[in-house]
Amino acid sequence: MKIIVDVMGGDNAPNSNIKGALEAIKENDIQIIFVGPKELIETELNKYQYSKDKIEIINADEKIENDDEPTQAIRKKTNSSMVIGLNALAEGLGDGFISAGNTGALLAGSIFIIKRLEDIDRAAITVLYPTIKGMSLLVDAGANMDSKPEYLRQFAIMGYIYTKEVLGKSNPTVGLINVGSEKTKGNLLSKEAFKLLESEEINFIGNIEGRDLPFGVADVMVCDGFVGNVVLKVTEGVAESIFSMLKKELTSSKKSKFGALLLKNELSNLKKALDYREYGGAPLLGIRKPVVKAHGSSDDYAIKNGINQLIRYIDKDIIKIIESQL
Amino acid sequence: MKIIVDVMGGDNAPNSNIKGALEAIKENDIQIIFVGPKELIETELNKYQYSKDKIEIINADEKIENDDEPTQAIRKKTNSSMVIGLNALAEGLGDGFISAGNTGALLAGSIFIIKRLEDIDRAAITVLYPTIKGMSLLVDAGANMDSKPEYLRQFAIMGYIYTKEVLGKSNPTVGLINVGSEKTKGNLLSKEAFKLLESEEINFIGNIEGRDLPFGVADVMVCDGFVGNVVLKVTEGVAESIFSMLKKELTSSKKSKFGALLLKNELSNLKKALDYREYGGAPLLGIRKPVVKAHGSSDDYAIKNGINQLIRYIDKDIIKIIESQL
Repeated sequence: MKIIVDVMGGDNAPNSNIKGALEAIKENDIQIIFVGPKELIETELNKYQYSKDKIEIINADEKIENDDEPTQAIRKKTNSSMVIGLNALAEGLGDGFISAGNTGALLAGSIFIIKRLEDIDRAAITVLYPTIKGMSLLVDAGANMDSKPEYLRQFAIMGYIYTKEVLGKSNPTVGLINVGSEKTKGNLLSKEAFKLLESEEINFIGNIEGRDLPFGVADVMVCDGFVGNVVLKVTEGVAESIFSMLKKELTSSKKSKFGALLLKNELSNLKKALDYREYGGAPLLGIRKPVVKAHGSSDDYAIKNGINQLIRYIDKDIIKIIESQL
Repeated sequence: MKIIVDVMGGDNAPNSNIKGALEAIKENDIQIIFVGPKELIETELNKYQYSKDKIEIINADEKIENDDEPTQAIRKKTNSSMVIGLNALAEGLGDGFISAGNTGALLAGSIFIIKRLEDIDRAAITVLYPTIKGMSLLVDAGANMDSKPEYLRQFAIMGYIYTKEVLGKSNPTVGLINVGSEKTKGNLLSKEAFKLLESEEINFIGNIEGRDLPFGVADVMVCDGFVGNVVLKVTEGVAESIFSMLKKELTSSKKSKFGALLLKNELSNLKKALDYREYGGAPLLGIRKPVVKAHGSSDDYAIKNGINQLIRYIDKDIIKIIESQL
């Protein structure tokens, strides 16, 4: 199995991407294709001991930045690590692609270069959403505005399959994000989508409300991309704001600093519970080959785990299962 | 000025509603009309010292429950404290109405009994949303699914006026909840609403993203009711889940319990920062008379503050200002 790694994507590129990939090689019987500036990669690789026969490099001198307009970036930066990496995947040089770069560009590039599955109307961005019970899969986390009920049906089926096969949850629960638990609640989209989801064999548990999401009420949380983006960002913002207030309080006096010191382990446990790093990444769903998006602030540990997830994505032949179900 | 109080609404009814109203009488030159079971109110009133000439009671034997279907409840429970209270407001027996009861029923009742303002397409539920800079007003917090751009324009204007006049923020900022900061981002609704908001004199600061809401990026946060409900409930859920994890960690060992004891004040400051009680309630906007919804779990302090807010809502003649601007 060959994994193509976007060396230049993410806040800690290239170091973490390379280090994480080398760690993944130790744990798995895989080969890595690094895509990025050749000399930079070689210099970085010199810091580590690794089996040379497990590594290939494809040169790519450009880089897609986080604030590049996605579609423009894919069209114009044809020498970027992301575009060249996706082309390598399309050409069959590797079995899957991982990037911690610009999410919108990765989605646009995957659709342009890898193409959507035939029976899929829209590809979706997924995100592993932290809950007190572990991670849930949020689909769609921001790819598609003004979704139609049929898109949500497809997101639900793809999310169910991925969660079952790759995240290893047997018969995961699927919930529809809505403003009330009753079937008749919500907007036109959610009411119609409810009817479609009801008749699928996906362990649909009905509507789920915002308040219950962080408590892990469903393993797969389905919604329109506008709503998914708002859910995700509000969650990040609330957690961040509470931690910033907590930090301020804990450093407000000598006594509070001492108290905080006694609670060091407990506070770090709390942060860890909200940590994306254990999972490393989440798949783009609905395209013809496996692509995983790693978190923008991924360190080497997150990249390694993202690659491990990509390996299962490939190994379990998720895309074939999705095709056969749709 | 006469304030009509729904004695039976809320988790702590009737005690907190009555106690809070009696406290409001001490602070303001107002009269209170209590609506609810007469004997129950009299028994409760006997616990306190108060000026009898400032109190009236209107008997109402029924109660609208939190899980009653709103429209049905308003139509069928004609002897409920909420319906009788709203009728008293419509007939001019009082100047404003406050209830901590079923939000949907209060909205439906206000529209049926008090009626919408002539130039308003949809009445909105607002909520005071906790941020690290204080409270922001969220409009619409869940009344209207599938909003049109014009509704959002009206929500923005009403929210701006209320925040300026009642919450006392001079030239408050107005933001449109969206998935990106650029004008071209979002769904069809947000793109069209952006254009409308741009041309209003309401200190519109553009799109605001989920992540920034808890940091107080805008004083007035405008969105469709589906999105507003999700924002509100996700915020509550995330805060609750973090506090529940924190509590678990802080009681996990003797050492952590001691640390937590040292941090007692700081942790209570943190909870206080997220506390709705200081504000007590938020207005329904777009109807012909002042109605304030107090939080369902309001204690007497919250009810008192809700009444104080209702007094300013009446005193500043907000509804006339809204009418003249629309």
